Amino acid sequence: MDRNELQERLPTIVEALVRSVISEPRVQHLNRVFLPSTAAIVEIVDKLRQLVFPGYFGKQGLTTANVGYRIGELTTELTDLLYDQVRCCLRYRKNIPGANGSTEQCEACDKDAARIVAAFFERLPAVRELLSGDVQAAFDADPAAGSTDETIFCYPGLFAITVQRLAHEFYAMQVPLLPRIMTEHAHGATGIDMHPGAKLGRSFFIDHGTGVVIGETTEIGANVKVYQGVTLGALAPAFGQMLRGTKRHPTIEDNVTIYAGATILGGETTIGANTTIGGNVFITASVPPNSVVTAEPPQLRIRERRSKGGRTTKVASPFGDGLLDFQI
Amino acid sequence: MDRNELQERLPTIVEALVRSVISEPRVQHLNRVFLPSTAAIVEIVDKLRQLVFPGYFGKQGLTTANVGYRIGELTTELTDLLYDQVRCCLRYRKNIPGANGSTEQCEACDKDAARIVAAFFERLPAVRELLSGDVQAAFDADPAAGSTDETIFCYPGLFAITVQRLAHEFYAMQVPLLPRIMTEHAHGATGIDMHPGAKLGRSFFIDHGTGVVIGETTEIGANVKVYQGVTLGALAPAFGQMLRGTKRHPTIEDNVTIYAGATILGGETTIGANTTIGGNVFITASVPPNSVVTAEPPQLRIRERRSKGGRTTKVASPFGDGLLDFQI
Amino acid sequence: MDRNELQERLPTIVEALVRSVISEPRVQHLNRVFLPSTAAIVEIVDKLRQLVFPGYFGKQGLTTANVGYRIGELTTELTDLLYDQVRCCLRYRKNIPGANGSTEQCEACDKDAARIVAAFFERLPAVRELLSGDVQAAFDADPAAGSTDETIFCYPGLFAITVQRLAHEFYAMQVPLLPRIMTEHAHGATGIDMHPGAKLGRSFFIDHGTGVVIGETTEIGANVKVYQGVTLGALAPAFGQMLRGTKRHPTIEDNVTIYAGATILGGETTIGANTTIGGNVFITASVPPNSVVTAEPPQLRIRERRSKGGRTTKVASPFGDGLLDFQI
Repeated sequence: MDRNELQERLPTIVEALVRSVISEPRVQHLNRVFLPSTAAIVEIVDKLRQLVFPGYFGKQGLTTANVGYRIGELTTELTDLLYDQVRCCLRYRKNIPGANGSTEQCEACDKDAARIVAAFFERLPAVRELLSGDVQAAFDADPAAGSTDETIFCYPGLFAITVQRLAHEFYAMQVPLLPRIMTEHAHGATGIDMHPGAKLGRSFFIDHGTGVVIGETTEIGANVKVYQGVTLGALAPAFGQMLRGTKRHPTIEDNVTIYAGATILGGETTIGANTTIGGNVFITASVPPNSVVTAEPPQLRIRERRSKGGRTTKVASPFGDGLLDFQI
Repeated sequence: MDRNELQERLPTIVEALVRSVISEPRVQHLNRVFLPSTAAIVEIVDKLRQLVFPGYFGKQGLTTANVGYRIGELTTELTDLLYDQVRCCLRYRKNIPGANGSTEQCEACDKDAARIVAAFFERLPAVRELLSGDVQAAFDADPAAGSTDETIFCYPGLFAITVQRLAHEFYAMQVPLLPRIMTEHAHGATGIDMHPGAKLGRSFFIDHGTGVVIGETTEIGANVKVYQGVTLGALAPAFGQMLRGTKRHPTIEDNVTIYAGATILGGETTIGANTTIGGNVFITASVPPNSVVTAEPPQLRIRERRSKGGRTTKVASPFGDGLLDFQI
Repeated sequence: MDRNELQERLPTIVEALVRSVISEPRVQHLNRVFLPSTAAIVEIVDKLRQLVFPGYFGKQGLTTANVGYRIGELTTELTDLLYDQVRCCLRYRKNIPGANGSTEQCEACDKDAARIVAAFFERLPAVRELLSGDVQAAFDADPAAGSTDETIFCYPGLFAITVQRLAHEFYAMQVPLLPRIMTEHAHGATGIDMHPGAKLGRSFFIDHGTGVVIGETTEIGANVKVYQGVTLGALAPAFGQMLRGTKRHPTIEDNVTIYAGATILGGETTIGANTTIGGNVFITASVPPNSVVTAEPPQLRIRERRSKGGRTTKVASPFGDGLLDFQI
């Protein structure tokens, strides 16, 4: 086939695709309201970051004299973006039909969107206070941190926590889609997967972060530290929709440190205050306060490698008892 | 040194770099055909996503009346982009030399590129059907999912699966480079590393996903669910090129659920149908159908923290039997 | 509330935010020097990548004849970008006050910036040589690699290693902020978290990579291979700032392979040459050379699933001894 024949095939190809689209309702979004815009929401996250940490991102050279103007500018831009997206999400939930969805009225959606955005902004000073605590916690806990500035500027954990605290406000006001889009954006950027429903206490620190999963109904107290690969998850989550709405994820009390790779599962599981959870520990039942929890690490077997030269060798499989034949 | 002296240093610097480039052939690509363009391939993935899920991304306001035009437009754009990139990859494999690589003819490459692109589009309705099943599986299995729309819109697992299913088509047609560039793009965005060679059955679900690794020769059946940090990998993969082309990765039969952190290794390893693999389990041998596999979790040791005040304390190391001295 | 009322609320909202900003110094950056620009540093990384791997990224069609011009062009652009950002970081460390920070002089910063940038470029040929070794190691070790080109083009591990080797040069010259911003950028793109302070030997290979953490004071020898989820970390890192500057992370000698999920902790921990560390192994003490280290994998329990039909079933919890009641 050459390029021209490919071109001639196009009408047949398009026809087959259109038939495929019309025939499967689960993977098309036709004849319905506009969905929220991921691009607009990413822009919202970016501007909110400038608003909660003025002078670090975006426009530089902020001073006590001009910061009011910059905040005013950001707030104005954000009001427009947020109003549009929140309204879009509310209209989506109302499942407003129509060929040209954007013209049908939903006065309740409009009013709720305005109310929600105003309420969100009124919460921002409180969220900023929480973030101050998170910044301090990150600096205090990490020997590699040169300054609190470095944590704000570089640390993926702090970025993920910032986005989650902001998304949580919209989740608490029951805005659909928007909170999850915000946290999945942070997840893509950091490898840290925190559901917007999770309740994070103050001075929360995540170090390294890749692989952290914190489920929707998790509750976390103050001064908690979490390392990479930690899961605060549900027991048997694959049982799906029947579990929707229940508390499925653990409760972590104040001053708990959870080291890398630990897994803590279950809505009834509580980790008591002042407790340290060791790396790679697997927990499905509550732990009392003031404890240190470790697992008996599996017995290490250290064997001498069989052959140090020659063309063939048997190497003990690092994964079990078998011997593998390999040319060296 | 000041800025001017730095400027004066430039010719010496450049000379040294050019010498370095000429002398090491493994890390330069001179005098050869154009390589594929990562930017173009990212654009291809973006447009394919709009094509397989019309109305969710890109242009909104699609209706039954206008969806044909939109699909036609996307298909036309994609034909051009794909033809160029596939042709580029085929010419790369032919290792066409020449100072200005783009002018040398390779008629076989041109014809094959057209054939491959046409065949790819003809597969798209079948791929869309598979993706419908994946969307449904994600909604059914996850209590946190508000709607099937939410899974399409937000879920990184579904994005990674979408890209893998599309890349797999090019892999099956033996296009070099392109399939891997597509899946590594998804890997960067989601933390989910699936080789384009893996065969995924229908209704496949990945939840959270960060840290999932699915190797080139993995075969996965229908209705399989995989959680974060799961590896479907090879035994002793560091033995490299000598293993190229062999089945190195496991086979997972229908209706299997693999919980977070599980590792399943080996080309001969089969997980039987209807089996549940528990979290953090480590498997290098086959498992029969209708089983539940757990590992004896290591014995947990829960000790009371030694000291609740005072300036020095010995804290039981959370990682072993040692005691660590710390000021509190 | 409607849209207009929201608009009228803005002055109150802005006032509250300004008060919040002024009152909390840890999360604002006012009245101080400009901070480095993450966008400029991402552009630096992008251009450096074109400089160390000419012909793969950016401008194509490079030949022996024109490569000098392209390298000259990149070096000129990079000199400007790097001088600005390095100078910015040095001025930041000097904490130069002032309402309009950029006009205050710091001649020492200017001179040091020029010196550092010149020294960095003079190191580039040596860094390229190390990267040649890394490219070869990736190809040799991975059966899924079609060519060394594929590793340069696609492999996230190689991208992370490239960025770390470049950032390490600035770390060694004690530039603040810039090295960490570079490696956190790579971390976000690849899930691989390597501190710029780590010392990487030649022919270093990371496969898959998601979840790898390599700490600031790690030392790695030649021909080392690391798989996904490996941590080369610190014991009890949450003890924070008091540990700053000490060797906290392990030493890995030559020809060591560390399989997926292994954790190796502690500044005194050395893994001897020619040793293989098995998957998921947890190590906090030194290991002799020429060893194979595995862990006794936890005993696997394989039970037959109780019920294959009917509306209610007890399923053995995959996570422990409990039985869970579920409708099927």
